[in-house]
Amino acid sequence: MITDAQVERWLREDVGHHDVTNQVPGETTGRLVAKEAGIAAGLEAAEAVFDYLGVDVVDRLEEGTAVDPGDVALRVEGPAREVLRGERVAVNLAGHASGIATQTRRAVDEARTESDDVRIAATRKTTPGLRGLEKRAVVAGGGDTHRLDLSHMVMVKDNHVAELGLEDAVAHFRERTSFATKIEVEVETVEDAPRAAEAGADIVLLDNMAPDETAAAVDRLDEASTDALTEASGGIELEDVAAYAATGVDVVSMGSLTHSAPSLDLSFRTGD
Amino acid sequence: MITDAQVERWLREDVGHHDVTNQVPGETTGRLVAKEAGIAAGLEAAEAVFDYLGVDVVDRLEEGTAVDPGDVALRVEGPAREVLRGERVAVNLAGHASGIATQTRRAVDEARTESDDVRIAATRKTTPGLRGLEKRAVVAGGGDTHRLDLSHMVMVKDNHVAELGLEDAVAHFRERTSFATKIEVEVETVEDAPRAAEAGADIVLLDNMAPDETAAAVDRLDEASTDALTEASGGIELEDVAAYAATGVDVVSMGSLTHSAPSLDLSFRTGD
Amino acid sequence: MITDAQVERWLREDVGHHDVTNQVPGETTGRLVAKEAGIAAGLEAAEAVFDYLGVDVVDRLEEGTAVDPGDVALRVEGPAREVLRGERVAVNLAGHASGIATQTRRAVDEARTESDDVRIAATRKTTPGLRGLEKRAVVAGGGDTHRLDLSHMVMVKDNHVAELGLEDAVAHFRERTSFATKIEVEVETVEDAPRAAEAGADIVLLDNMAPDETAAAVDRLDEASTDALTEASGGIELEDVAAYAATGVDVVSMGSLTHSAPSLDLSFRTGD
Amino acid sequence: MITDAQVERWLREDVGHHDVTNQVPGETTGRLVAKEAGIAAGLEAAEAVFDYLGVDVVDRLEEGTAVDPGDVALRVEGPAREVLRGERVAVNLAGHASGIATQTRRAVDEARTESDDVRIAATRKTTPGLRGLEKRAVVAGGGDTHRLDLSHMVMVKDNHVAELGLEDAVAHFRERTSFATKIEVEVETVEDAPRAAEAGADIVLLDNMAPDETAAAVDRLDEASTDALTEASGGIELEDVAAYAATGVDVVSMGSLTHSAPSLDLSFRTGD
Amino acid sequence: MITDAQVERWLREDVGHHDVTNQVPGETTGRLVAKEAGIAAGLEAAEAVFDYLGVDVVDRLEEGTAVDPGDVALRVEGPAREVLRGERVAVNLAGHASGIATQTRRAVDEARTESDDVRIAATRKTTPGLRGLEKRAVVAGGGDTHRLDLSHMVMVKDNHVAELGLEDAVAHFRERTSFATKIEVEVETVEDAPRAAEAGADIVLLDNMAPDETAAAVDRLDEASTDALTEASGGIELEDVAAYAATGVDVVSMGSLTHSAPSLDLSFRTGD
Amino acid sequence: MITDAQVERWLREDVGHHDVTNQVPGETTGRLVAKEAGIAAGLEAAEAVFDYLGVDVVDRLEEGTAVDPGDVALRVEGPAREVLRGERVAVNLAGHASGIATQTRRAVDEARTESDDVRIAATRKTTPGLRGLEKRAVVAGGGDTHRLDLSHMVMVKDNHVAELGLEDAVAHFRERTSFATKIEVEVETVEDAPRAAEAGADIVLLDNMAPDETAAAVDRLDEASTDALTEASGGIELEDVAAYAATGVDVVSMGSLTHSAPSLDLSFRTGD
Repeated sequence: MITDAQVERWLREDVGHHDVTNQVPGETTGRLVAKEAGIAAGLEAAEAVFDYLGVDVVDRLEEGTAVDPGDVALRVEGPAREVLRGERVAVNLAGHASGIATQTRRAVDEARTESDDVRIAATRKTTPGLRGLEKRAVVAGGGDTHRLDLSHMVMVKDNHVAELGLEDAVAHFRERTSFATKIEVEVETVEDAPRAAEAGADIVLLDNMAPDETAAAVDRLDEASTDALTEASGGIELEDVAAYAATGVDVVSMGSLTHSAPSLDLSFRTGD
Repeated sequence: MITDAQVERWLREDVGHHDVTNQVPGETTGRLVAKEAGIAAGLEAAEAVFDYLGVDVVDRLEEGTAVDPGDVALRVEGPAREVLRGERVAVNLAGHASGIATQTRRAVDEARTESDDVRIAATRKTTPGLRGLEKRAVVAGGGDTHRLDLSHMVMVKDNHVAELGLEDAVAHFRERTSFATKIEVEVETVEDAPRAAEAGADIVLLDNMAPDETAAAVDRLDEASTDALTEASGGIELEDVAAYAATGVDVVSMGSLTHSAPSLDLSFRTGD
Repeated sequence: MITDAQVERWLREDVGHHDVTNQVPGETTGRLVAKEAGIAAGLEAAEAVFDYLGVDVVDRLEEGTAVDPGDVALRVEGPAREVLRGERVAVNLAGHASGIATQTRRAVDEARTESDDVRIAATRKTTPGLRGLEKRAVVAGGGDTHRLDLSHMVMVKDNHVAELGLEDAVAHFRERTSFATKIEVEVETVEDAPRAAEAGADIVLLDNMAPDETAAAVDRLDEASTDALTEASGGIELEDVAAYAATGVDVVSMGSLTHSAPSLDLSFRTGD
Repeated sequence: MITDAQVERWLREDVGHHDVTNQVPGETTGRLVAKEAGIAAGLEAAEAVFDYLGVDVVDRLEEGTAVDPGDVALRVEGPAREVLRGERVAVNLAGHASGIATQTRRAVDEARTESDDVRIAATRKTTPGLRGLEKRAVVAGGGDTHRLDLSHMVMVKDNHVAELGLEDAVAHFRERTSFATKIEVEVETVEDAPRAAEAGADIVLLDNMAPDETAAAVDRLDEASTDALTEASGGIELEDVAAYAATGVDVVSMGSLTHSAPSLDLSFRTGD
Repeated sequence: MITDAQVERWLREDVGHHDVTNQVPGETTGRLVAKEAGIAAGLEAAEAVFDYLGVDVVDRLEEGTAVDPGDVALRVEGPAREVLRGERVAVNLAGHASGIATQTRRAVDEARTESDDVRIAATRKTTPGLRGLEKRAVVAGGGDTHRLDLSHMVMVKDNHVAELGLEDAVAHFRERTSFATKIEVEVETVEDAPRAAEAGADIVLLDNMAPDETAAAVDRLDEASTDALTEASGGIELEDVAAYAATGVDVVSMGSLTHSAPSLDLSFRTGD
Repeated sequence: MITDAQVERWLREDVGHHDVTNQVPGETTGRLVAKEAGIAAGLEAAEAVFDYLGVDVVDRLEEGTAVDPGDVALRVEGPAREVLRGERVAVNLAGHASGIATQTRRAVDEARTESDDVRIAATRKTTPGLRGLEKRAVVAGGGDTHRLDLSHMVMVKDNHVAELGLEDAVAHFRERTSFATKIEVEVETVEDAPRAAEAGADIVLLDNMAPDETAAAVDRLDEASTDALTEASGGIELEDVAAYAATGVDVVSMGSLTHSAPSLDLSFRTGD
């Protein structure tokens, strides 16, 4: 959810102490229009901005809707001064989130060329202050949020394994973790993948492995007939997605979905 | 400046209510390392994160330093638990800001192939919550912040001109604006450029003009021998920069510097 | 983690605009002393209060340590004015959290009379503003946090099942939920327990069942040889814990751990 | 008063970044229902939660109303998603406050068996972040808030007396305190009670005295014919109230009203 | 107390997103110097600003110290950039508070020409956001804070009296008010003054009465031999203080102390 | 803009934890009435307070309207409890801002006796937390905001000049400053005024010069035929304004507009 406190911070940041150009009397209408094709997201956040300002949002696309140039994603009506005040922040939010949704959809489409089931997931490499917005944008694009914060899922990392040994590291965290929380274990070799699963990992993260290694690790896990899911991660870009999807992993995660997706080009037009 | 309140929000967002993997005793060291070449920025923000957590920042590059793969941008020492808590937020901030600085530097380098003086400027198309960080990253990359918020400079837009006429619109805002504030006037035709300058614009924004039109407008302004600066704006991408720089405009502004720069790849390594 | 912003709110709430009795010059020492036996918790929060005020915490028990009357849980040194300012808030936090830890320990001890493995878990029935503190206090007492917030684990409730049917409800949420998130399904009859597990529940919540029904449901799930965990929930008080522990459920959850635990009696003494 | 900022913090704490189970379309109704007898309180706070979410509160009991199992304390109507989002926080607030009001009413009823006038008062031993809610819940239960914060009333403590002597300590604070502020003086012996009153105490706190000592101190003050009020304080539990009420003190204060009252059992039901 | 959150808001308000003139390397010293005679106040707040910025406050006058032109009220040492950042906010706070303290001292001095005991008090007419700072500045000037907020003391106003009658209005609020809280009753005629005292007012506010009426009301109260204090209030300016002081009232309250005191002229000088 | 977060802080500051006198049922009306002549300002802020409380503002004067005693500046309708809660904060805001607007108008009127064009400007000597309110009040009074924060305009100060020399100091900051930002240079001698203009100052600040020196500096700048504006600053009081206005400077700035303007006397009346 977007809170009023967030909206206030964003508006103050953009408006400053005394803005003279928005001192416009009367009412107006406005619409957020796509200038390029993509997936709309962040419209709830844009709506929250206008709500805070007392501007009516009279129409809005569902998060995740595909848009073409000229499509209207959101329509508003209200005092001209407030519409103008909210415009830039609303466009910045929706453009940013839609860029992420669009990039996610591209990655999902790539993956679907090789697999019907593999999930495309984000990471914790999000923009500080916008974790929720970005994770929801990934969902709008057909992706998976992955863990939302450190408390959501335990990740057993290479340094934990180095210190305690793989089995003991998993046991250590299993004991300290709620039954409500999954445990994922990061492995760097094909051999360690089944060990992690047998040690009790809910998910095995195949870290920085090439597609062929990834496929080998997935095979090993299949042979071990565990229920553990598998995730490929580490510098995977859009052009690599199909190759990883073909390996049989359950999840392909990509930091670039949130930290490097270009904004979707949107514009805000007032009046008729 | 980065405030403690911002750092708190970013940390809470990433940590959640109860994170078990960072419960590590003892002290550790850590370093933020470039994995690709670029321009470092956001290191003050990363330092603010560690400061808040009581972790010493023992070394840090100046904002705007060029880095190569393997270069250390920041070194810390402190309680392992706090170093681990701060790591992800620090990388996310620095990666985001360094991506912007790097993209800005690329645009500046493009511009320098044609002009020694033209400024590459950002816009108000920034990520909500990170305006200051992003504007400072643009400066770190050799760019110009452009206006920081609506109160910083008056922009007379096409709708103002449509309603009042160009000269009256400028006069209207000149009367309502502090002597401390510049006035920029957006024009859409070559003919309007000298009119805007004569009406009192400090800067004439040449909106969505092709490079040849831009050059023509700059010439007209030169003939009118005004002191007004000129800015080219509107969908200018990296590959267009040189062409605009060659027109003689004073400023080329690019929304993509802040809304579409991919993150610079940085990693955080703990221990020796 | 406890943030400075929280500490500020708590201190302002207790101090008000102009407090004359704490205007004491010089330095002092202080100690937080148990007046009854129990489990210490909330000491990190108490430390955060003193840290904010510039008072040194020179010694502090680990969260979860058993204390007897007279035991010192935390020692401080610093400016008398600041020690006095922090005292009441620190005691209130530690007394509240220790009360929860102590109550949790009692429930765990009850459970251990019948089962070595069953987990005693809290719920979302926490005091608004103190979710993290209370969940960590439950852990300090030997309990399990259960889900930390709505985003941590999906709970498929009776109304979801009523609307969609059990299998479809689980499928509906499985599709909308990250691979990182567990799904728990609430059932109200013994018959529905294995259905929920087969539908894909990670955990089956046996809602408001008597111990014998609970045992029957656990048996059914064992017969179905699923990996699903089982949780007994709904109005379970301390005196009921052993009976539920004896049923073989994996988890017994109790709202009263956080919403009805009496505070542990602690006092703060300054000077020698 | 409950502020939007508080409501936001409570909701974010409970909801997290991305909650999938509350994504329910359409409108619904809901009601907060008592599951046990007690005194309703915290309903203004619950209303503030729903207000923030744009949910109409169509009916609500007055704070302090006695409820029986099945009684409806509050009714709402609004978007299903928002009703569901607010439900848990609203129940937690109202259950907590009603527990305090109920416990206060019990103490008042005990006191009334011996005295028509004695006041049952809370202390500063409140839950950090909820001082106002808890003090108002005490009032709802028929009790007295006692001082709301350190700035509300001066308390001259044993350490002040030890340092300056009783008379000088009172004079010291009388000089530093507004005419708008009462001064209460803590005494530990029967003999000191009239001394404190003569020194100018508005209230004499009889600290940790048994009922018979308390009665003796009250008698001494009556003999001294001062206007000073008397307060009995220090570890007084529900079962002690009548004995203290019988001593003639004006006020009996009890930390347990706020720090150890069990929550009143309330449930929230949606739909018809 | 001044919180970090307040300091942050004040600094951000003054600094904005990107300030280039304070980018000064190295360390410096600074001192806050009086340019006119007055009473120093607000130095704790100024110190809080520098503390937040990591600048050492090496020396500071006590609140309430009389200063002459050239006197140094506060000395700092630290990073030049941070000293410069804090300077303006620190001067603004200290100048504002010292102006209030100075004006209060003038009023107290006026009052002392006629009475040794009368208190000069502020009102609730303070600058929003600075209540505590201003009330403490009044104390620094030798004045009385009066009530700090609405919850501190009950004020029975003319509209309450009009509705319920004087005696019933006092009884109404006595019943609803903590024993810890004083009750002041506003009266508009000499006749009502003793009625208010007899009804149980702790303080009788003589509202908008001329000095001779005020004296008459004080006499009536003396005759009635009540313990009630008396307060003269309503548009009393510095030149009226002596006349009111001579009437025998206990308190003269003046909104102008906080809402109309000119700032004390202070300057901040860096370097030696 | 006034945010909800500001309003909340102001209301909490004034109300405290439990205020009993405003517990009034039913609806009421209220009006903010001038008790002396002046210029109304701060009414938007007063409206924001009532908006937050759910009280309708049914009528409100424009900022900057001249009022006479008895004129109604703002009318409200709503729940009596909320009207009473907002009253004091609303009066404090509007009285403060109107005092500033009134003082500004006086200074402008003084200036107009000698010059039709000179601007009367505020400074950064504002009350912490109320920068925007105060700057907008200056505008309401016919004045000029001057720079809104450090990031709005660069001020080259005497210490910069001392270190780098005048020309180099200006060049140094020109290079580091956005094209969107003006540069003002502070000079202390008549001779330096044209040097500053030639070095590229947009505005030359004539610091602490007497009117005759100021006139001399303005003449020199006229001779140099630069476009630079001139500002007279430093301890200029109302009685000095005409003399400075007569010198031909473009701007006269006065810290006293914001830091020493007495509040305008307003009262709030409820009911008919």
